[in-house]
Amino acid sequence: MEEPLVRPRPLASEAAGLRAGVPELPEYVDRLCALVERVDPLIHAFVPEPGRHGRLRAQARELAARYPEPDGRPPLYGVAVGVKDIVHVDGLPTHGGSALPPGVLAGPQAPVVERLRAAGALVAGKTVTAEFAASAPGPTRNPHHPGHTPGGSSSGSAAAVAAGLVPLAIGTQTVGSVVRPAAYCGVVGFRPTYGRIPIDGVIPNAPSFDTLGVFTADLAGAALVAPLLCDGWRPADDSEPALGVPDGTYLERAEPAALRAFEEQLARLARAGLTVRRVELFPDFAEVGRQLQTVNRFELARSHADWFARFGGLYRPETAAGIRVGQGVAAEDRAAALRFRERLRERVAAAQTAAGVDLWLAPSATGGAPEGLHGTGDAVMSLPWSFLGRPALSLPAGWTGEGLPLGLQVVGAEGGDERLLAQAALLERLLTGR
Amino acid sequence: MEEPLVRPRPLASEAAGLRAGVPELPEYVDRLCALVERVDPLIHAFVPEPGRHGRLRAQARELAARYPEPDGRPPLYGVAVGVKDIVHVDGLPTHGGSALPPGVLAGPQAPVVERLRAAGALVAGKTVTAEFAASAPGPTRNPHHPGHTPGGSSSGSAAAVAAGLVPLAIGTQTVGSVVRPAAYCGVVGFRPTYGRIPIDGVIPNAPSFDTLGVFTADLAGAALVAPLLCDGWRPADDSEPALGVPDGTYLERAEPAALRAFEEQLARLARAGLTVRRVELFPDFAEVGRQLQTVNRFELARSHADWFARFGGLYRPETAAGIRVGQGVAAEDRAAALRFRERLRERVAAAQTAAGVDLWLAPSATGGAPEGLHGTGDAVMSLPWSFLGRPALSLPAGWTGEGLPLGLQVVGAEGGDERLLAQAALLERLLTGR
Repeated sequence: MEEPLVRPRPLASEAAGLRAGVPELPEYVDRLCALVERVDPLIHAFVPEPGRHGRLRAQARELAARYPEPDGRPPLYGVAVGVKDIVHVDGLPTHGGSALPPGVLAGPQAPVVERLRAAGALVAGKTVTAEFAASAPGPTRNPHHPGHTPGGSSSGSAAAVAAGLVPLAIGTQTVGSVVRPAAYCGVVGFRPTYGRIPIDGVIPNAPSFDTLGVFTADLAGAALVAPLLCDGWRPADDSEPALGVPDGTYLERAEPAALRAFEEQLARLARAGLTVRRVELFPDFAEVGRQLQTVNRFELARSHADWFARFGGLYRPETAAGIRVGQGVAAEDRAAALRFRERLRERVAAAQTAAGVDLWLAPSATGGAPEGLHGTGDAVMSLPWSFLGRPALSLPAGWTGEGLPLGLQVVGAEGGDERLLAQAALLERLLTGR
Repeated sequence: MEEPLVRPRPLASEAAGLRAGVPELPEYVDRLCALVERVDPLIHAFVPEPGRHGRLRAQARELAARYPEPDGRPPLYGVAVGVKDIVHVDGLPTHGGSALPPGVLAGPQAPVVERLRAAGALVAGKTVTAEFAASAPGPTRNPHHPGHTPGGSSSGSAAAVAAGLVPLAIGTQTVGSVVRPAAYCGVVGFRPTYGRIPIDGVIPNAPSFDTLGVFTADLAGAALVAPLLCDGWRPADDSEPALGVPDGTYLERAEPAALRAFEEQLARLARAGLTVRRVELFPDFAEVGRQLQTVNRFELARSHADWFARFGGLYRPETAAGIRVGQGVAAEDRAAALRFRERLRERVAAAQTAAGVDLWLAPSATGGAPEGLHGTGDAVMSLPWSFLGRPALSLPAGWTGEGLPLGLQVVGAEGGDERLLAQAALLERLLTGR
């Protein structure tokens, strides 16, 4: 047993405190850097940055000079945010978890970073990603158990929020790279509807799926930041949701212990008076997976075509193998897979209307974080939702026998991000009590 | 391994958030009660209160109606605070951890509670105390390890803050009942100068020493609340302190592992450029202990004279034995012990001036929290400071090999509470990085 590393910091009250001058920014930045220096060597959530303290001090000074009075300070005034290292941030190199020369990967700052900065946030640093947001893991450890993966590919973002290094981090999800690490690390992960946050300035994996997302300690934090990052946010309907469970082969991909915890959560929600309906939603789940993989592999290969041609020898074997498989996928097969997706989208929407379901529930991952740092776990529980481009979030919900966190995945309608966050608040309260 | 129970919540940002309406009070109170209901059965920090939710909802409604706008809200608006169950709170019975009829123990609300309520705080509940703040422990478990004591006698207050049930709790210290449980539970404990917070409305143990104190996640929290509770708070001098270490038989009472951690902390502070001077301050330490015990035992017996005469059979054996020993102490021996204290006070003050020391440092306790719930650990490391009435605080500082927290005790000059809190901020930053 060692020092407990898990100390998630609620974003909403931290942001409110900073706006009120509690603490003042210089103090906040000094503590942040002391904390990263002391704790990050144990979890490796951040990409090392020797000049971090000086850079943040200068940025904090600028920000404080621009907003000398609490009145009129922007909503994330001073908030330290970790940004996944496939997202371009002016002044910080983009490595993307790879050995490629950062000059080759460089690009203009991502709009998501512009939006964070316009809201007053300070970029605390780049967070570790699996190589190019695919599967070859970085050095990050799970703060709940340093011998276990934090999940990926947004490994550092999830671990940094779980360890309380920062109250907010940005990740991306192609298949399961926000929801799964959030669940493994016991924090909230929110992956909005595909396209809801501009994806420019982010190294692509599979552009048909790539979506920015956020990690916070709790749902209130996600609800604070989502309107600042998403396009066209509207007031939300927070009526009590009717819940749906997608029964069948999809759900059976979860491990027995995770399924037992999931069923207990359903029972708890039902006891609290919520409606839970079970629907066989993906009778062809294996086919759904194959079709997604066709698109993903094709697009990964196209995203990396130029770089891989020039620097193929610098890619890690897992990534290189994935790219080579993708090079063998025909464009017409990818087009057919996207047509399959349209039919699936219509079918799921119709089934949802017929069943009168607002939110779908499923385990966020097949179980707790697997042991070892050689992989980042299985994304399968996120697969159909990411294929469909639906908004999804992971709420901390229960524990494995080993004391690793489990997550409850809550999925909304396409474009229904507002409603998802608003309606999930009740689930969070009933399930976590935090 | 189970769910990590340690989640201390920083008071200052939580209070700033509540003042700004983040979260609104009804939501805050609902979450608080859900959290206590879910987590407290694992640690037993609170005295059970069946009507808690309804009471807090009503009090929150009143408070929100009185302060509808963020502007003008008091500094602890809505903050949930745990109050040790030897402190009278209107509307809640005082049991004092004993089997005596609460009607017998009842009394007018303590001024410390008036001050908390005037500052906007909501009393979340009474926290478990060792019987009459002496040594017979309550059911509270250490959130860092449920098989270990949280320390005492302010057991529930320390555990409630460590588990993040509340961001603030009130305790009392006669010898070591704030500093030790704070250290065992890995939170900040602050015990001001004797007399600095009115002690009225608190069941007495030894009135020559009894002092109210506070538990918070961090020093910023203690610094927020101290001016609201202490009499005549003034602006503080936060110049870099010269540090003193009271070498000799006193320090040798700590276990080797705790002493090693302490020496590492001293080395770290010295590396950061701070002056550390070693002074043999209590060459007669055993005698200091005997003299304190003479006063303590005499006064405990006098405090309980009437109740013990009527309800002696309801006292727990440890407490009854202590009272009986105290009944045998002569009033002139106690008077002599208090004269001894005056000489000690002068001698220590002179040694401090000669050495040019601002703050004394020592381990907060002899080691990490002992295993088992049959006792609350050894108060000896607090003994000379409590005898002298000096302000002291415990900062989280390091870990035992078993993963239990250790504390650094920082002691100021009599009446130098402001300076102690201000100067300790630097130590907290250098040692904890949180």
